[in-house]
Amino acid sequence: MTSSDEVSVEELDFARLNGLITVVVQDASTKDVLMVAFANKEAILRTLKERVAYFWSRSRKKLWMKGETSGNIQEVERVLVDCDADAVIYLVRPRGPACHTGRLSCFYRSLKMED
Amino acid sequence: MTSSDEVSVEELDFARLNGLITVVVQDASTKDVLMVAFANKEAILRTLKERVAYFWSRSRKKLWMKGETSGNIQEVERVLVDCDADAVIYLVRPRGPACHTGRLSCFYRSLKMED
Repeated sequence: MTSSDEVSVEELDFARLNGLITVVVQDASTKDVLMVAFANKEAILRTLKERVAYFWSRSRKKLWMKGETSGNIQEVERVLVDCDADAVIYLVRPRGPACHTGRLSCFYRSLKMED
Repeated sequence: MTSSDEVSVEELDFARLNGLITVVVQDASTKDVLMVAFANKEAILRTLKERVAYFWSRSRKKLWMKGETSGNIQEVERVLVDCDADAVIYLVRPRGPACHTGRLSCFYRSLKMED
């Protein structure tokens, strides 16, 4: 994926989801998708400034740095933006499991496919 | 990622996002994230039954099969589910570009990082 095309935070579309955009967290090395969460503008700005993953917690209604209690922070190498600017990918180097269950990824289950 | 743990559609949590869950579409071979969209229960059921990617279009308020006009359908090999069951990954073999711009992935831009 080539991304010489750079956009600024002001170009992100926070309007479609009540001030939030969708964040996919992807391991920069393995390319595994680790988790999906949401970010408001402040979470994005903190992520860019500190280069660690910040989100907006919908349940707790507060800014949230991944690993702030567990220590499993995610170093952010790059943030990719989709064509309609309402979803981003944090490309990260995780310092520990993404999932509260202790698994590397939150996506450890699959849906039963019909036979 | 091992996912012997299988869940049914009934276990998905559509309540937190007004009847929708987040869908990350990931190329099963390259592991590139191609796009992010949303699905309601019907979209998930059609995806499982027909093994091609269905979504719910929030702007058009209708069920939507990826590629229904462009022909760029996405064959779905497997659907992964996250720990709180409100996001899924469609692992796909795309028959064409995911993005309406003609690019393989919608995530072809990146956010300016602070120096």
